[in-house]
Amino acid sequence: MNCMVAQSGGPTVAINASLAGVLRANEETHAYEKVFGAVNGILGVLDEKFLDLTDQMKTIPEFTDRLIHTPAMYLGSCRYKIPTDDTAIAVYQKIFSILKKMNVESFFYIGGNDSMDTVDKLSAYAKEYNIPIRVVGIPKTIDNDLVRIDHTPGFGSAARYVAASVREVAMDAYIYAVKSVTIVEIMGRDAGWLTAASALARTESSPAPDYIYLPEAAFDLEKCIRDTRALLEKKDTVVLAISEGIRDKDGNYISTADSGSDIFGHNHLSGAGKTLENILKNRLKVKVRSIEINVLQRSAMHLASGRDLSEAEALGNHAFHYALEGQTGVMAVLERTSGDPYKVRYDSCPVHEIANQVKPVPRSWINAEGNDVTDEMLAYLRPLIQGEPHVRFKDGLPDYLPVEHLLD
Amino acid sequence: MNCMVAQSGGPTVAINASLAGVLRANEETHAYEKVFGAVNGILGVLDEKFLDLTDQMKTIPEFTDRLIHTPAMYLGSCRYKIPTDDTAIAVYQKIFSILKKMNVESFFYIGGNDSMDTVDKLSAYAKEYNIPIRVVGIPKTIDNDLVRIDHTPGFGSAARYVAASVREVAMDAYIYAVKSVTIVEIMGRDAGWLTAASALARTESSPAPDYIYLPEAAFDLEKCIRDTRALLEKKDTVVLAISEGIRDKDGNYISTADSGSDIFGHNHLSGAGKTLENILKNRLKVKVRSIEINVLQRSAMHLASGRDLSEAEALGNHAFHYALEGQTGVMAVLERTSGDPYKVRYDSCPVHEIANQVKPVPRSWINAEGNDVTDEMLAYLRPLIQGEPHVRFKDGLPDYLPVEHLLD
Repeated sequence: MNCMVAQSGGPTVAINASLAGVLRANEETHAYEKVFGAVNGILGVLDEKFLDLTDQMKTIPEFTDRLIHTPAMYLGSCRYKIPTDDTAIAVYQKIFSILKKMNVESFFYIGGNDSMDTVDKLSAYAKEYNIPIRVVGIPKTIDNDLVRIDHTPGFGSAARYVAASVREVAMDAYIYAVKSVTIVEIMGRDAGWLTAASALARTESSPAPDYIYLPEAAFDLEKCIRDTRALLEKKDTVVLAISEGIRDKDGNYISTADSGSDIFGHNHLSGAGKTLENILKNRLKVKVRSIEINVLQRSAMHLASGRDLSEAEALGNHAFHYALEGQTGVMAVLERTSGDPYKVRYDSCPVHEIANQVKPVPRSWINAEGNDVTDEMLAYLRPLIQGEPHVRFKDGLPDYLPVEHLLD
Repeated sequence: MNCMVAQSGGPTVAINASLAGVLRANEETHAYEKVFGAVNGILGVLDEKFLDLTDQMKTIPEFTDRLIHTPAMYLGSCRYKIPTDDTAIAVYQKIFSILKKMNVESFFYIGGNDSMDTVDKLSAYAKEYNIPIRVVGIPKTIDNDLVRIDHTPGFGSAARYVAASVREVAMDAYIYAVKSVTIVEIMGRDAGWLTAASALARTESSPAPDYIYLPEAAFDLEKCIRDTRALLEKKDTVVLAISEGIRDKDGNYISTADSGSDIFGHNHLSGAGKTLENILKNRLKVKVRSIEINVLQRSAMHLASGRDLSEAEALGNHAFHYALEGQTGVMAVLERTSGDPYKVRYDSCPVHEIANQVKPVPRSWINAEGNDVTDEMLAYLRPLIQGEPHVRFKDGLPDYLPVEHLLD
């Protein structure tokens, strides 16, 4: 028999470590003859686009170690959702007939919310029709918004990148003895976990970010302007960390206020950072710049959290064993059993408790004024950004696994 | 007697290494009793805002090593230019009376073009009035646009960051099996050196960036659209690297075409990347995103080039010795005496040959079509991004020297 892995959703630097966890678990147990990778998620199953990963492990030197230190998604992704209408049955039949043809006993899907919905549906279908194929989910998302897990693989690395970058942006901002505001816009449209991680940038001597705004607390523009103005009376440099998804008490995104149309008459949205930059420039009459911490927060392997990579691998390993034990319709999770010293325990959880749910930042982890996070948040975050990744460098640059199979 | 150092212009990750070079040279030679740092460039001299760096070396453990691995500018910066009108004489008199009062025999100014103009003027004034103070320049700029030097400190590190980031952005782009264009906007309004460095991101299997556009070659928008469309017929993912300063054959910046006004009626310029994104979206009808490689390209110490830091330190060290020898009105430079193996030779050069000059990318290092760089450029760039910095980490984050003296 064989097993198969696919990846879905947005990239993280840790998602390939979970794939490596599955591969190493099979190497240790010899449970399956082959581990196949479906290219571009569930679409790769439907299109029968497979990689023989067991073969790659044999032919590519140090394959799993390189895989762990390769960002984005080795198997590619898709945004495909299994239809919910009459056409669904044909899709299920096709998927399972292909999996049967490939002698797949266990199918692993690494992804976020939407991917867990797929795991839920596939496993339910298999149960209903007595198809002896196990479907197990492995979590990942930089947004950290999955329920029933202490934190998600990919989040710790992104948090580390955000914190280090905000610290460096602040160093850059401190050099001029002129009044200025620097806005750092961080990913997470609905969940503020990653923006909260900017608080880790602070040191005894460097207070940046001075204020932090998450989507979970209503953004009060006038208060932000007042607070920033007051700070500028005391010092030169103010640094604000904002989520791309900050919105006012009525749920309106700040950026919709500034949607201009381009020369072709198309509306396009300025980001939250750019919008706030323009407002603060106008209202405070000081130098304001905004910096978008872009896709590198999910792709910059050189600042990955070593702990995040280890945990992502361990979740892949545990998921493999849950499948071997016959579990299906579950996702591998981790629970923090102790904060200091930091300890986690791995477990499986029915995926229907996870799919399509979200875990926002609790309001109690945001200060009353809605412009900072609490010590409880910091204690939660701090262990997640520890440890160095062992990135290989070649000719001065990170040496990642080639992904020709994704290019055509 | 004492000496004094100041920093000016924009930050780089290597400018503090040059400061460390001066400090270590004085430690080795015991030439001066004190090395003072003027805070915020020449303004710090005028305001008499000084740090006793000799004292800091004694009291802060491993000060110079930490300094080398601290980004931005330990001494802060300024954009001050010495006036050229009648008020200039009073400024010169004040500067030199303060330097005399501080028993300064040698004054080192670390910066780019404008800073070298200051070095030129100060040294000329001192010569004219027989003031026995030597003024020596130490170069830095991520733009790499100084003449009479093979490359500038700070450039190699920024180039490394750009190349690694473009490689990671490409990995992020490859994951979806849909037609898409990713535009990466890189700093360098007038000089394309840093954008050229994106070419180093390419690997045998990853062709990104597919096209590279520098300010030194006229940007032909219609050709860019044609070329991108043609590529999209052959493959899914196209990555374009563009300088923030790309302009058409008449010298018009691409971004001026798209300046919209905000809700307050103020014009604000979209960046080149955002402008091209909107144009390509409209014309190619595919997914297009633009990513601005922001200030982190000059502040991200964790991806600094080890060679860049060493050379920056060596230039500080050499500048110190030129001053000790009695040279003034010079800048420390380096010449590449061999490409492979890479070797450099240090020298001094009269600063009036450097101040206010710029070194654009030679047109012959750009391909005939104006959308890529040549092998000669690659051979020039490759040695500059080699070597790892020894960044200290504490609690998972880079541990930089505190800069309280810049904050108030």
